[in-house]
Amino acid sequence: MAFTEFRPLDDKSLLEYIKATPSLSSKIGNKFDALTIKEVGDGNLNFVYIVVGSSGSFVIKQALPYVRCIGESWPMTKERAYFEALALKEHGQLCPDHVPEVYHFDRTMSLIGMRYLEPPHIILRKGLIAGIKYPLLAEHMSEFMAKTLFYTSLLYRTTTEHKRNVAEFCGNVELCRLTEQVVFSDPYKVSKFNHWTSPYLDRDAEAVREDNTLKLEVAGLKSMFCERAQALIHGDLHTGSVMDTPNSTQVIDPEFAFYRPMGFDIGAFVGNLILAFFAQDGHAHEGNDRKEYKEWIWRTIEETWTLFHKKFTALWHQHRDGSGEAYLPEIYNKPELQ
Amino acid sequence: MAFTEFRPLDDKSLLEYIKATPSLSSKIGNKFDALTIKEVGDGNLNFVYIVVGSSGSFVIKQALPYVRCIGESWPMTKERAYFEALALKEHGQLCPDHVPEVYHFDRTMSLIGMRYLEPPHIILRKGLIAGIKYPLLAEHMSEFMAKTLFYTSLLYRTTTEHKRNVAEFCGNVELCRLTEQVVFSDPYKVSKFNHWTSPYLDRDAEAVREDNTLKLEVAGLKSMFCERAQALIHGDLHTGSVMDTPNSTQVIDPEFAFYRPMGFDIGAFVGNLILAFFAQDGHAHEGNDRKEYKEWIWRTIEETWTLFHKKFTALWHQHRDGSGEAYLPEIYNKPELQ
Ligand SMILES: Nc1ncnc2c1ncn2[C@@H]1O[C@H](COP(=O)(O)OP(=O)(O)O)[C@@H](O)[C@H]1O
Ligand SMILES: Nc1ncnc2c1ncn2[C@@H]1O[C@H](COP(=O)(O)OP(=O)(O)O)[C@@H](O)[C@H]1O
Ligand SMILES: [Mg+2]
Ligand SMILES: [Mg+2]
Ligand SMILES: [Mg+2]
Ligand SMILES: [Mg+2]
Ligand SMILES: [Mg+2]
Repeated sequence: MAFTEFRPLDDKSLLEYIKATPSLSSKIGNKFDALTIKEVGDGNLNFVYIVVGSSGSFVIKQALPYVRCIGESWPMTKERAYFEALALKEHGQLCPDHVPEVYHFDRTMSLIGMRYLEPPHIILRKGLIAGIKYPLLAEHMSEFMAKTLFYTSLLYRTTTEHKRNVAEFCGNVELCRLTEQVVFSDPYKVSKFNHWTSPYLDRDAEAVREDNTLKLEVAGLKSMFCERAQALIHGDLHTGSVMDTPNSTQVIDPEFAFYRPMGFDIGAFVGNLILAFFAQDGHAHEGNDRKEYKEWIWRTIEETWTLFHKKFTALWHQHRDGSGEAYLPEIYNKPELQ
Repeated sequence: MAFTEFRPLDDKSLLEYIKATPSLSSKIGNKFDALTIKEVGDGNLNFVYIVVGSSGSFVIKQALPYVRCIGESWPMTKERAYFEALALKEHGQLCPDHVPEVYHFDRTMSLIGMRYLEPPHIILRKGLIAGIKYPLLAEHMSEFMAKTLFYTSLLYRTTTEHKRNVAEFCGNVELCRLTEQVVFSDPYKVSKFNHWTSPYLDRDAEAVREDNTLKLEVAGLKSMFCERAQALIHGDLHTGSVMDTPNSTQVIDPEFAFYRPMGFDIGAFVGNLILAFFAQDGHAHEGNDRKEYKEWIWRTIEETWTLFHKKFTALWHQHRDGSGEAYLPEIYNKPELQ
């Protein structure tokens, strides 16, 4: 069974695929007897298989040419897997502590093999619902954002490297368009895919659609999102793209990666923490009013920003004589300008 | 004599080239007897040959792999001719009245054949020095800028087309870098290629180098120049890139074309008119104090902006229900938002 052209995998063909792929089979010590393969499938777009053997494990993520949670009626290029693999590798180089290692990539099959983030890793969004504290979350996420955003910006890079990368990621246009639609357009008009808690929030949803000041503000942000190639952003950095234990923070799923304003990542992550903060009241019950947990979330929001600011400016200072072309040392490295 | 690989032309080999190229030889009715070939060579970067026969004419522009006015010590990709040809053709489609027609392009030879802008066309900068009035200049240049900038922006285009074009023009990185250097960096530091009227302006040049407020402002503009893909700009729209008669305005030399902030073109053109305004005192003599001419320049500056604003917003209004994705009709086409 050869895999020379694209086809969607299932448990059976995945096993064949693994056997035919040394970079994967070696990860499980080439032992196929006690292998378990389980599709996780709680993501919105793709298929994720967890593969665990007696002496190793990995995860296989495959992109099909449509949006999983909608179905074949919403086609979406499977080339997104290529950009996800590119971004995972680049993030992994820049911040190896917080990104799962990529073991294998197959462009024809739109398939990535990567480290299995084993339990107790869970999706951060689920942890926030369960009320689990992650004392290192702000530290780790500020580290991830500071490193990935700084090192891919013109504060570190030459414009030559920058344009080469921007040109490459321009191929990820369909995923950008999805964000343009669901973040910058759909909420401000009547749209098939909008949903909210109806009828309770009907008036609020309508108020957003009717708020002209907000809509003009959003148009400015959308222009920047479409036009400004500031740094390689993750592009989908909500709490569903982070897997955590109290000691470990891992950022997954950068298939929306593109050169865009840095604020989009920082805002997505912090914005999702703010949502989690307000959602706590809904999770409160007699034994736990979630008051203390809300305080922890609030502190985490503050610390994420403070630490991000500190780490980012420290990287900038550290590389102030480097090859970044936004602020040339000869012009800007003067005590009065620091 | 075949031209299967790049070589710099001279009068003799150019004649062979024309004979071997139907799209050129047909322009002069395939008559090679009374042909005159003259290199103009008042540009900074490239070689321009004017070819005039008894029944037709054209211009040949060739890029050599270095900067002409400096010499081989400043290498510069000859691929710039490819981007110049791309931009000339795109500008020509969007604004045919003000762009010379492209007859021929040869990527291997980095060579463009285009309409000869015959006398009395002269370079606008020379006209401004000679004190010639161009009553239609503001009308024509505002037309050129409004059309080329509007139709290549997200006010008219989809983000899919936009990204495809941005990716293509990312190849023109070397020319962008030249602008980054000579416009956004060199003036603010001591640099080999800076020159000014010394010693008279020594203090002024130094003041620019020491002005920290200005330099921080310029850093912001440079970031936008390097990062923001707003529209396909000409990129070198000074008065040396415009050829004029009192009835005709033709924009040449877009080899610096790239997706950048629109303001860079508008500012370059208006800024050069402002320079010309202040330079008039140096051209004044007993018979002509240039006072009236200065007033004409001033009016032209005002009109260029007023007409640009008017034409640009008219295009926007005209295409408000079109496929441009910056302001979706469903969200923004409401009377209160016009
Ligand atoms: N490396 C991994 N280790 C363990 N679980 C993973 C890994 N990658 C993904 N998952 C699981 O699969 C789910 C979907 O993955 P994700 O990359 O977010 O896909 P999608 O692009 O469809 O959103 C995640 O929510 C998580 O539960
Ligand atoms: N189409 C044309 N018709 C007539 N003269 C031209 C034409 N194109 C260029 N020239 C002449 O050649 C000179 C240099 O051309 P230009 O395109 O500005 O080259 P460069 O890129 O070297 O600045 C112009 O200043 C003008 O005098
Ligand atoms: Mg996901
Ligand atoms: Mg995803
Ligand atoms: Mg020129
Ligand atoms: Mg860009
Ligand atoms: Mg030029």
